[in-house]
Amino acid sequence: MQPYELTLGAAAEAVRTRRLSPVELVDSVLERIGRTEPRLHAYVTVTAERARRAARAAEDDIAAGRHHGPLHGVPMGLKDLIDVAGIATSASSRVRADHRAEASSTVAGRLEAAGAVLVGKTHTHEFAYGLTTPQTRNAWHTGRVAGGSSGGSAVAVAAGTATFALGTDTGGSIRVPAALNGVVGLKPTYGLVPRHGVTSLSWSLDHVGPITRTVEDAALVLAALAGHDPRDPASLTAPATGYRPPTGTDLTGLRVGVPRNYYFDHVDPEVETAVRAAVDEFEALGARLVEVEIPMTRYIQATQWGLMVPEATAYHERTLRTVPELYRGDVRVLLEAGELMPAGDYLRAQRSRTLMRREWAAVLREVDLIAAPTVPATAVEAGQETITWADGTTEAVSDAYVRLSSPANITGVPSLSLPVGHDTTGLPIGMQLLGRPLGERVLLRVGHAYEQTRPARKLAPAA
Amino acid sequence: MQPYELTLGAAAEAVRTRRLSPVELVDSVLERIGRTEPRLHAYVTVTAERARRAARAAEDDIAAGRHHGPLHGVPMGLKDLIDVAGIATSASSRVRADHRAEASSTVAGRLEAAGAVLVGKTHTHEFAYGLTTPQTRNAWHTGRVAGGSSGGSAVAVAAGTATFALGTDTGGSIRVPAALNGVVGLKPTYGLVPRHGVTSLSWSLDHVGPITRTVEDAALVLAALAGHDPRDPASLTAPATGYRPPTGTDLTGLRVGVPRNYYFDHVDPEVETAVRAAVDEFEALGARLVEVEIPMTRYIQATQWGLMVPEATAYHERTLRTVPELYRGDVRVLLEAGELMPAGDYLRAQRSRTLMRREWAAVLREVDLIAAPTVPATAVEAGQETITWADGTTEAVSDAYVRLSSPANITGVPSLSLPVGHDTTGLPIGMQLLGRPLGERVLLRVGHAYEQTRPARKLAPAA
Repeated sequence: MQPYELTLGAAAEAVRTRRLSPVELVDSVLERIGRTEPRLHAYVTVTAERARRAARAAEDDIAAGRHHGPLHGVPMGLKDLIDVAGIATSASSRVRADHRAEASSTVAGRLEAAGAVLVGKTHTHEFAYGLTTPQTRNAWHTGRVAGGSSGGSAVAVAAGTATFALGTDTGGSIRVPAALNGVVGLKPTYGLVPRHGVTSLSWSLDHVGPITRTVEDAALVLAALAGHDPRDPASLTAPATGYRPPTGTDLTGLRVGVPRNYYFDHVDPEVETAVRAAVDEFEALGARLVEVEIPMTRYIQATQWGLMVPEATAYHERTLRTVPELYRGDVRVLLEAGELMPAGDYLRAQRSRTLMRREWAAVLREVDLIAAPTVPATAVEAGQETITWADGTTEAVSDAYVRLSSPANITGVPSLSLPVGHDTTGLPIGMQLLGRPLGERVLLRVGHAYEQTRPARKLAPAA
Repeated sequence: MQPYELTLGAAAEAVRTRRLSPVELVDSVLERIGRTEPRLHAYVTVTAERARRAARAAEDDIAAGRHHGPLHGVPMGLKDLIDVAGIATSASSRVRADHRAEASSTVAGRLEAAGAVLVGKTHTHEFAYGLTTPQTRNAWHTGRVAGGSSGGSAVAVAAGTATFALGTDTGGSIRVPAALNGVVGLKPTYGLVPRHGVTSLSWSLDHVGPITRTVEDAALVLAALAGHDPRDPASLTAPATGYRPPTGTDLTGLRVGVPRNYYFDHVDPEVETAVRAAVDEFEALGARLVEVEIPMTRYIQATQWGLMVPEATAYHERTLRTVPELYRGDVRVLLEAGELMPAGDYLRAQRSRTLMRREWAAVLREVDLIAAPTVPATAVEAGQETITWADGTTEAVSDAYVRLSSPANITGVPSLSLPVGHDTTGLPIGMQLLGRPLGERVLLRVGHAYEQTRPARKLAPAA
């Protein structure tokens, strides 16, 4: 096994015990980048020289007995919305052609302090405003979309060109590409991970979180990211520790909610089968399955768009006036639509969110978590615009991709996406576990228990 | 001294020690209502029979040794936006002609549980959307405005037709009429007093709080009102106790912020003189005066209106379509204006509030409280539409009345208004003390210390 193939947990243990040097690990990942990037295009920028310097420094530190913890010396990719001092934050947009970040974001600063080594900035759907990341190719099939908006990060982790990565998630942008590329993505509770220094799409829905190869890896990264920062007005002051899941797989006493509505409507049969099989596995591990009714489902789409569209437009107000031609067409249309939205529509969306949070809290008093598909279909072909369902109805790909993930953005509850198999064409399928606010521990414990019952996952073929 | 003239503290003590029966107290207030209401019009509805029954029940309870605390058997008025089961909540509007509240609001329920006796529902500027309460007359001069929107509550407390009352405050609606009628008004920290069952003007700015004759009385009422209720989405879970101010007047060690900008601009000289004299009194009591710079003042008006106007319109959406003709002209114009506001303006106001909260928090780290005029002028004549300042500029009365009070609504900080004298025509002048979030104790302590240095206040002449 090559170092680039290691999970974060395995790499960390090898580095800590000095069986693997950070220099070997980083070199292995950089070499893998050299082989796969011409086909995958996961990265906007590869910071090879910087990474090699950091790897040498980590090696020296560890040799001198200064080990900073599990991220020390481990190569990571950061979605190119996340500021790193001295490097451009391009947001995969021509609008940011001459950008250079003055200071690092909170999350980049925390990861750097933990010793992680930046190997590059990964592609996003332009300004995170879309679900395909057209620059990047799916790690399992280059004719398929990467998913988005954190497509570059998910593809890099799936293909072995980053040991872990960060994404952002406003309607599903961590979980959708994680599911479509067969890796783990965690959208934490709203406010748990500070967003200071991260380009905003929609501040009341934006989240930052890890994309990793295993659930245990997600816990390791979350531990470094979580915790209060007053520079993000929504940042929570709740203590953030103890995410590492226990080793046992016993789920006795846990109540897993299985939605009787919404989450299995207009879902590809292969996706449904894989998710229900994973739910059965929870039951085999001792959990009790409880049917739940998802509340206010007919308000989900209007609430998500009613919040996101005007907030996104407000963020881009100036550049929309000065350089509108630098945006890609799909993003510019959405931003300009936001200028026409009346305040009343935004207010209705805010009120609907308030009610939805309350109703979800009631459901999550009855169960410990909810299990559901992350995305209703596997990765579509690049350029495909609609999905046709079994009943003959068609749905825009972007609507379908965001449909099952946005409730967690609206309500702020944590959602962990993890792989639960492949369809008959070999494309990955994802399941999401939705929990109570600040209930990350439960999701990580359940996801980790499930993973231990499966054979170790392989990297994507990246071809 | 007649029972209706007693402060809440004095009445409570007389009731507790059985020197005064709740029946005598309520009868005295009802008789006073009979004498003054034909001139003052503080009340929409007087609930005389209900009050007499409640007074007899309180008398029986207390005789049987079941004393519920300082509000037991004490007559109160509730602004007619506050639901009381079985009674109309008219909002002083024809739109609510056939209204009848099914259940009591949280605050009415808590006051009832504390044994307070409702004597009536008091007038508000229609749906709280204005600062004069045109139906009601000032308790000191019937040719002058009551102030608003809680004009009825302030006039009732000032004139002796309620021992205490509740108001609501979205831009100053508790403090403005309290100041103009020479009584105490407290707008608590945003979220401290639950608003469930209280008609909303603008949910992100709305507060409920007491109007009383003394600062100590405000503390007694606040203790009954404060505390979490999940039915108000903004309700805080912070513990709410210990408001009763200490008896001493020593303010040594306390830093009182005196604004060098904004709060003394375009302020009537007699108001400024009275407020500065009160500030000097704080210094005489041992406090240290510290000049402070009020941040972001040129955004205050746009932020207040940018938040309030669309939220108010959203609340009235249905009736604006079905019965627009039932609103008074001034309110209907404002509600219809809200339909034209773009989402971007509301978002800018929300962002500006976020920044303003942060900047105010920084100022309030340097001082323990800020002292300022509540309203820049005393009560204007009924029907007067503008105020002309010494430099020849004119300002709409509603703009002037809300100007100094709205910052506490935008930032959510508590603000206590208390009387600091009269102008040469005999009209009352109010000072407000602004504190840190959940810093009510400090404001009540300082206000109470100041009050102890002054002669006891008299009731308004009500003629």
